[in-house]
Amino acid sequence: MTNSLHVGIIGAGRIGQVHAEILAYRIPTVNILAVSDVVPEAAQKCATTYNIPAAFSDHRAILDNPDIEAVVICSSTDTHAQFIAEAAQAGKHIFCEKPIALDLKTIDHALAAVEQNGVKLQVGFNRRFDPNFKHVRDMVAAGEIGEPRLVHIMSRDPSPPPISYVKVSGGMFLDMTIHDFDMARYLIGSEVEEIFATGGVMVDPTIGEAGDIDTAVITLRYANGVIGTIDNCRQAVYGYDQRIEVFGSKGSLAAANNVPHRVTHSNANGVHTALPLHFFIERYMQAYIDELKAFVQAIVEDTPPPVTGLDGRIPVVMGLAAGKSYRENRPVKLSEIGS
Amino acid sequence: MTNSLHVGIIGAGRIGQVHAEILAYRIPTVNILAVSDVVPEAAQKCATTYNIPAAFSDHRAILDNPDIEAVVICSSTDTHAQFIAEAAQAGKHIFCEKPIALDLKTIDHALAAVEQNGVKLQVGFNRRFDPNFKHVRDMVAAGEIGEPRLVHIMSRDPSPPPISYVKVSGGMFLDMTIHDFDMARYLIGSEVEEIFATGGVMVDPTIGEAGDIDTAVITLRYANGVIGTIDNCRQAVYGYDQRIEVFGSKGSLAAANNVPHRVTHSNANGVHTALPLHFFIERYMQAYIDELKAFVQAIVEDTPPPVTGLDGRIPVVMGLAAGKSYRENRPVKLSEIGS
Amino acid sequence: MTNSLHVGIIGAGRIGQVHAEILAYRIPTVNILAVSDVVPEAAQKCATTYNIPAAFSDHRAILDNPDIEAVVICSSTDTHAQFIAEAAQAGKHIFCEKPIALDLKTIDHALAAVEQNGVKLQVGFNRRFDPNFKHVRDMVAAGEIGEPRLVHIMSRDPSPPPISYVKVSGGMFLDMTIHDFDMARYLIGSEVEEIFATGGVMVDPTIGEAGDIDTAVITLRYANGVIGTIDNCRQAVYGYDQRIEVFGSKGSLAAANNVPHRVTHSNANGVHTALPLHFFIERYMQAYIDELKAFVQAIVEDTPPPVTGLDGRIPVVMGLAAGKSYRENRPVKLSEIGS
Amino acid sequence: MTNSLHVGIIGAGRIGQVHAEILAYRIPTVNILAVSDVVPEAAQKCATTYNIPAAFSDHRAILDNPDIEAVVICSSTDTHAQFIAEAAQAGKHIFCEKPIALDLKTIDHALAAVEQNGVKLQVGFNRRFDPNFKHVRDMVAAGEIGEPRLVHIMSRDPSPPPISYVKVSGGMFLDMTIHDFDMARYLIGSEVEEIFATGGVMVDPTIGEAGDIDTAVITLRYANGVIGTIDNCRQAVYGYDQRIEVFGSKGSLAAANNVPHRVTHSNANGVHTALPLHFFIERYMQAYIDELKAFVQAIVEDTPPPVTGLDGRIPVVMGLAAGKSYRENRPVKLSEIGS
Repeated sequence: MTNSLHVGIIGAGRIGQVHAEILAYRIPTVNILAVSDVVPEAAQKCATTYNIPAAFSDHRAILDNPDIEAVVICSSTDTHAQFIAEAAQAGKHIFCEKPIALDLKTIDHALAAVEQNGVKLQVGFNRRFDPNFKHVRDMVAAGEIGEPRLVHIMSRDPSPPPISYVKVSGGMFLDMTIHDFDMARYLIGSEVEEIFATGGVMVDPTIGEAGDIDTAVITLRYANGVIGTIDNCRQAVYGYDQRIEVFGSKGSLAAANNVPHRVTHSNANGVHTALPLHFFIERYMQAYIDELKAFVQAIVEDTPPPVTGLDGRIPVVMGLAAGKSYRENRPVKLSEIGS
Repeated sequence: MTNSLHVGIIGAGRIGQVHAEILAYRIPTVNILAVSDVVPEAAQKCATTYNIPAAFSDHRAILDNPDIEAVVICSSTDTHAQFIAEAAQAGKHIFCEKPIALDLKTIDHALAAVEQNGVKLQVGFNRRFDPNFKHVRDMVAAGEIGEPRLVHIMSRDPSPPPISYVKVSGGMFLDMTIHDFDMARYLIGSEVEEIFATGGVMVDPTIGEAGDIDTAVITLRYANGVIGTIDNCRQAVYGYDQRIEVFGSKGSLAAANNVPHRVTHSNANGVHTALPLHFFIERYMQAYIDELKAFVQAIVEDTPPPVTGLDGRIPVVMGLAAGKSYRENRPVKLSEIGS
Repeated sequence: MTNSLHVGIIGAGRIGQVHAEILAYRIPTVNILAVSDVVPEAAQKCATTYNIPAAFSDHRAILDNPDIEAVVICSSTDTHAQFIAEAAQAGKHIFCEKPIALDLKTIDHALAAVEQNGVKLQVGFNRRFDPNFKHVRDMVAAGEIGEPRLVHIMSRDPSPPPISYVKVSGGMFLDMTIHDFDMARYLIGSEVEEIFATGGVMVDPTIGEAGDIDTAVITLRYANGVIGTIDNCRQAVYGYDQRIEVFGSKGSLAAANNVPHRVTHSNANGVHTALPLHFFIERYMQAYIDELKAFVQAIVEDTPPPVTGLDGRIPVVMGLAAGKSYRENRPVKLSEIGS
Repeated sequence: MTNSLHVGIIGAGRIGQVHAEILAYRIPTVNILAVSDVVPEAAQKCATTYNIPAAFSDHRAILDNPDIEAVVICSSTDTHAQFIAEAAQAGKHIFCEKPIALDLKTIDHALAAVEQNGVKLQVGFNRRFDPNFKHVRDMVAAGEIGEPRLVHIMSRDPSPPPISYVKVSGGMFLDMTIHDFDMARYLIGSEVEEIFATGGVMVDPTIGEAGDIDTAVITLRYANGVIGTIDNCRQAVYGYDQRIEVFGSKGSLAAANNVPHRVTHSNANGVHTALPLHFFIERYMQAYIDELKAFVQAIVEDTPPPVTGLDGRIPVVMGLAAGKSYRENRPVKLSEIGS
């Protein structure tokens, strides 16, 4: 197809494969020219599975290919900022998984490279593209519930990650809540000014021993007066619990969990329905597809991507503020977090 | 009926009439001997409606009647503590509407009189008897969701009270949230140690001009580690929004709103169901009945009432802590609130 | 109270006690002057429980009391028609439990007596007053779903009655489906012209040995073209299953079961909600109250009662047609059932 | 990929394009070698869109290609049986859209060719693969509701097809209800022995003028005693209404409609949720994918296809019986329909 977009994928781990499958099978206007991974077998396996003509262990091989117009960065978090900068310098448009980095200096260095080279950067806050949450956002933005007053984000994982991951994750606020910080901004369309975070170790004491928490409630004060809460837990035995509620002067909107089927079973013990979808890739598959479609569209139509570098930066500021609030047990203004 | 309990009702306003109807028609083992109200016509009308043989303007006429074993105090809040003390001195068992008083000194004076005279006192936190909330509490207490981790209480009124009422109400935390503070203790069975409250004026600026707020989010830290939130708003256009969710290590429990009918209407515009019950007396009628049944049972069986004087005192402490937290924008320990 | 209606209750069995309690406690404008039952102890116990001043074993003592304006007939089905006729001759207004009788000749004799004596007769099709079903009917009648096309009535009991009862019940169509035949007429406001019934013995073979069936599907053709189905089963292990759906040119209405609480419990096994209310008196309590209020109102305001003698007769015709259809395995017109 | 299955697609209309997309993008083990359509432009467009190397106007070009192992027949209904026979003679495995034909003689001729040539034939009753319905079937088959007693199938289209289509459709029972006849067999795993159909023209009088009906209720008697109903309407203004309920001795299973999002909107007018998915391809996309996966798997693993030629034949018998029942207004045994 003549107007195909030529892309390269950097990182062929779990999420890299998800993006590869989507780019290969769900977006007909894309051609994947190459994939790279520091583990050569991973790159090769991904290439074979999705009919990608080239596999490399060095991402430079992708950046050096002049036919590649855009890259999808799915490598480990600690490489994101560097790869963004390099890709920008190579003139490639960039889709990068969240977070850009765990500290602002590194983020700002990457964003500066993007700015200087005039490429597009979209950060992988996929949940914005979830049909439930997008519907809520669109209804709020359209004024369907009047002036928003309260927002609640319930975001609980089925089970905690391995403790080895927890130790390098940057902490729950930057690893898990970061999605919810983005959601909080997305839903209301106003910035959060102050955060109060409280939490504890309720799931697994080894998480506490690693210096992290596994359960938290975060209160948000927005510039426009709205008050928000986020609750997080690293473990919900009934599955992946991802709900939101926005309450306003003319009504409320509440998004329930997605389920694998719509069957109700009644027996002598009760009335039973399906557990929420358990696995995040299954739960958010449509969102993963739609975010890449939006990225491709932004390039093809030369419009700003729907999730910008700044959208990638602010949730990190929020995560740092939440961490400070939790440690100092007081509300912390985002302005207290230095640039 | 020979084993009737003889009661007097003090206060024949809206809630007094609710209690009168329940005592007259729903609890066969009770005989109402007298009703009093500072407005004589109100007492007389109540007596006529519910076949009560005597109506007075002075509550002393009830306390002086040796045949009356128990009183139900439904007069204005500022009289509760005094009437409790007088009724205790007269040897009557006491059911009193919440709150006992808006300050701790007055409350403690009333509770001391109850203690000294060995009568029973039940405070009217009726929502504990709501079938939805009671089911959640019973399931939590039975360990059905393992160790509780998070609790959310959504409690929103259909519309704000008159501004004249707001001015004498003691403020939203003591007037409205007080029910939720009690619910928070009831559901979890552990005491709250620290409160962080944030809020604002989002419904009606005249409420702000009166020095109060109309919307709030309150975060609770319990002694057992549980984290709770309460959200309140003086106005929800879709009706009386009274929901809770308790999340624990083995599952979660969520109570939805009650509805007047269970009909789903599908048409070209959507799928529509009934608004929540709008009026608090309709919403909580079963709770009003069951709390009085429990009061009568506690007297007849000589057992402790299910909502004690201390249960009436602690939510006031919580309300005072919430007010202090809101004013000072910091978490406040309940121990900071002097006895 | 001067404008009280003075009533007598004939029959103090289970349903008689329900009506006695309602008349005693829920409808302030009624005074019960007497109760009768062929079992004197039953009449006496009912009188004691509900403060009824007189108890008799002979219903004539009620009919002979000139102060009694209306009777509520709750005796066994085989006495209904005779008692209606006697009460009519005594000039009493009559509320009678369904069915009037199991054969048309007996019914017509009773209705003739009502007609000749100019008294009011209301038949106890209580489900018309259920808030769910009434809401559906009112919406249909208001044209909210346009022209109705299909109606489905799901009506299943928690468990079959004793086989001794089954043997004298007149068969499932006249004992159980009769409520649904009435509901079918009530919802659509058009008469059924033809019935096709099929069924079987699926619950308990002794019901089959008694010559009856315990499970059936009945198809209804209405004069206005609407098609209806009724499904019945004498046993639903999950409780009392009472739902309806009406589908029309502009939408549909569906009434779900009533539940004892609105709590959702999620755990590792699923998402669980409450079973339907199990016991018919609990399920239809509001309907029992509202039908008697309507009866009292019809007398006080001298208006036609909302469920007439003809409304009591037609479902018996439908039950006889269903029986004939089942036996002959063919659609049967109501006009085939002799007047 | 070496173990690809090579297929050809016959018919590139709407459903042909759906199958082409699925075979092209959703089932990696399939290679589409050619597509044909009597309209050459349609075949060419399909080939271009899905990267199919060859496009023909004559289906013989596909049957003559020795590299093609299987064909997917999506041409007009009147060609199905002939193309099945030809493909069988060419030694191709066959997936064919329903119905095979509208008369049994034609069907039997096609099935004989399949039998004689030892190829596999799967008929496109896609709804068996819908996650909701499959879950119900699997639960029923596993005995989760004990012995089934009743089954209800509600199957209503958003709007009627063009009258030109109605005229050649074979009538509603063979065109629309045929899916439900298959579902009835699939859910219960027992054959239907007798059918009673009633119906009318309620949507559009021109459908009546064309000799067809647009609304029907069909009662089914199964060999194992179960009783079923199907209701159909050519128009439901709220969307594509596709629900089932199976009731048994130990409980019931009910499948609700699928919805585009799980957001509840509460405002002053009510509580609103999404309309059912409107378009059949969107509603049943997962089923279309899964039926083709099952077809491919049956070939690769050399197992019987999950929907056989006989499964394609019996619903036609049922449709003919329903038509006869409707015309003669009596229950018709399937054995009355000649072989």
